[in-house]
Amino acid sequence: MKVAKFGGSSVSNATQIKKVLNIVNDDPDRKIIIVSAPGKRHKNDVKTTDLLIRLYEKVINQLDYQDKKREIIQRYADILEELHMESTLLETIDETLETIIKQLNDKHDRLYDALLSCGENFNAQLIAKYNDSQGIKTTYLSPKDAGILVTDLPQQAQILEDAYDKIYKLREIEGKIIIPGFFGVSKHNYVVTFPRGGSDITGAIIARGIKASLYENFTDVSGIFKANPNVIENPELIEEITYREMRELSYAGFSVFHDEALQPLYKHRIPVVIKNTNHPEDKGTFIRHDREVTDKNQIIGISCDKDFTVINIKKYLMNRQIGFTRRILEILENYHISFDHMPSGIDNISIIMRSNQIKNKENEVLSAIRKKCDIDELSIDHDLAILMIVGEGMTQSVGTANKITHALAESNINLKMINQGASEISMMFGISRENADKAVLSTYEYCYHGVCLKNLCPK
Amino acid sequence: MKVAKFGGSSVSNATQIKKVLNIVNDDPDRKIIIVSAPGKRHKNDVKTTDLLIRLYEKVINQLDYQDKKREIIQRYADILEELHMESTLLETIDETLETIIKQLNDKHDRLYDALLSCGENFNAQLIAKYNDSQGIKTTYLSPKDAGILVTDLPQQAQILEDAYDKIYKLREIEGKIIIPGFFGVSKHNYVVTFPRGGSDITGAIIARGIKASLYENFTDVSGIFKANPNVIENPELIEEITYREMRELSYAGFSVFHDEALQPLYKHRIPVVIKNTNHPEDKGTFIRHDREVTDKNQIIGISCDKDFTVINIKKYLMNRQIGFTRRILEILENYHISFDHMPSGIDNISIIMRSNQIKNKENEVLSAIRKKCDIDELSIDHDLAILMIVGEGMTQSVGTANKITHALAESNINLKMINQGASEISMMFGISRENADKAVLSTYEYCYHGVCLKNLCPK
Repeated sequence: MKVAKFGGSSVSNATQIKKVLNIVNDDPDRKIIIVSAPGKRHKNDVKTTDLLIRLYEKVINQLDYQDKKREIIQRYADILEELHMESTLLETIDETLETIIKQLNDKHDRLYDALLSCGENFNAQLIAKYNDSQGIKTTYLSPKDAGILVTDLPQQAQILEDAYDKIYKLREIEGKIIIPGFFGVSKHNYVVTFPRGGSDITGAIIARGIKASLYENFTDVSGIFKANPNVIENPELIEEITYREMRELSYAGFSVFHDEALQPLYKHRIPVVIKNTNHPEDKGTFIRHDREVTDKNQIIGISCDKDFTVINIKKYLMNRQIGFTRRILEILENYHISFDHMPSGIDNISIIMRSNQIKNKENEVLSAIRKKCDIDELSIDHDLAILMIVGEGMTQSVGTANKITHALAESNINLKMINQGASEISMMFGISRENADKAVLSTYEYCYHGVCLKNLCPK
Repeated sequence: MKVAKFGGSSVSNATQIKKVLNIVNDDPDRKIIIVSAPGKRHKNDVKTTDLLIRLYEKVINQLDYQDKKREIIQRYADILEELHMESTLLETIDETLETIIKQLNDKHDRLYDALLSCGENFNAQLIAKYNDSQGIKTTYLSPKDAGILVTDLPQQAQILEDAYDKIYKLREIEGKIIIPGFFGVSKHNYVVTFPRGGSDITGAIIARGIKASLYENFTDVSGIFKANPNVIENPELIEEITYREMRELSYAGFSVFHDEALQPLYKHRIPVVIKNTNHPEDKGTFIRHDREVTDKNQIIGISCDKDFTVINIKKYLMNRQIGFTRRILEILENYHISFDHMPSGIDNISIIMRSNQIKNKENEVLSAIRKKCDIDELSIDHDLAILMIVGEGMTQSVGTANKITHALAESNINLKMINQGASEISMMFGISRENADKAVLSTYEYCYHGVCLKNLCPK
């Protein structure tokens, strides 16, 4: 039994929806379908979710929101018309939106989650109805009816462990099941959205719940590239990747499949495949617990994320002071800052975090460190990009670091930081933001094609 | 005004002592002389300090200690005879040892410090007396009379900040001053020894106290080598090195001059020179605040220390849990463990410490981590050596990491860990203990002679 999830661009209009249903109906094993809200139909289009955010903003600012509401309804009206369906659903949509706005007008957090969930929710209802009308038994299930019971904090939904038992019973329902992605329902009966990678997470939860043999994640690409296609022209596709590798790549910017969605799958070893709705015949990329490592595929991918900040602290004889680092971490914790890495020397330590973690708190945090830790020097650098080279067992083999540092040196890229050690499957290099793309290009060409990009080097 | 310190082998017998005094009397600026206890006279000889430890052990075990005491007295008797001096000092030595043993018999910690201090103390008295008898006005000063006032914890002496004012007045004393190294006196009037690099620290304290123009540290080598001479045949000598570089090299095993002795000198920028008592004409190695960096001397030295332990912790989604690392550090702090480095991945962290930090506490610490932090996996590895490549500004230049990793890869050495980032003047590589010497050899030959030691590679 398989779970298939379709992203926003796969369900943005009638043509796409028909493709999706062809795929779904083509395989009797494709039992449960998770759909997103209608995405962009063309480059300058606006996603339904963004239309819903605009509606939310009008409402909370007590402005006239009717135009915004009409735009949303129109998206579904277009799809219904193209599919030659009755327009009765539009009245339900209008009523639902008005009811939400009326009931949650004074609870902005709840209103936000409830309005945003509509994008997926209406689409799921529409698609289920259409497929059923084509003679294939198809049931729409709300996340509540499907058993997606989550924690109560707005925008931070986490599945409750006991939800899985109810979800397992979905196996007994006859025909296809269509469930909207992106949200669950709390014990207090509020709609709560998932923090990141919303619909991917719904799919993963359902796949785990029904103990699926495969979780198919349909997008608009034929799999995961070995490097960012905005940086590398026609990068190679990854055939197989492990959960762990996927997480490391996601961390530094690979956004095809969100790493948080791997969590429900990880322990139960449910494989994922990333496939292309427009080319379902393509093999796609499999995400599994294990893979066979050869010399050729040892480095599975290269990614680079540009938004990191580093705090550098110097303190003479730091390594002799028991408790020094702990005091600094306590300060970060008090400001709810999660840091990522902490390379240290004898008399100095660097604390690396995503720039958004310290945004708007910088001065407070730095002065707290100055006040509470007896330090010699303190500086902050917002210009850090992190290049991740990922591959199972990579660091166990002699010469990998040499390969990467060679490519970077030939391209005249200075290494602000190297962090290798704790993870056996990745190496991390801190570089200037301006070198980020050049670093991906030079390591990609050297690792996969043995080409050394000296021409990148202005030396 | 200069301070000169002479190590144990420089004051081990009459010939050496005469060399020392020639050096001292040769330069009117050499005002204050710090001496060690008599060291080994030949390879199989026993250092006076070790004889004193044996005496201490007999005493605390309530065994007959007279033989051990006689051995010690004989060391000084030999020197007195060779210098054609009267033997009256020997009675003082005997009486002093007996008095200490009687008075501190029930305070083992105090007894240890007091007995061990005798090695330096008797030698300083002897040498001062001899030089004075040669017609050069020379005064012996005990650390108490010199003003070396320290904290009271046995074997852990630290200079008290207000001691420096009294030390400054030593400038007014006429003639040469000879002070024993290795210990000070606490406010409760106990002899307390310095923790490590004892006599070097005494010299540094005096140099800072009298605001010396230079602190000369005489040993049995003509300076500091760029790598361990037990590993590299005839390594090159360092001409100039900064305090910071010296500290990084000391950290990983360079023992010529103890890094803790740099602390008093650091802020006041008092330069140190490491010279050879047997070849005082050699230039030696200068340790300064700044040095001129050229392409040729960018990497100032290479060292490797073999005794590190690493604890590896895996925890899925670790980097999202605020406070996780802090909890682990709290456990280490509770066990008084000072750690050195903490490389981290997305889901894992390694904590690196000197093996002696966790010795005898390992099981307790690991089970505390298991109990208090909700971890997935925990392992410990005692087979870690740390290779340090040190040089000012090194990490700011493109290609340094590549140079080192190339040399190591060519010698077939796997890198367990790389830590570069916090310190601008060093790169740290974690390797297997068995590869330690090979790593020093291959990086030394490649960095200084451009020779790539492929023959080290059994591949």
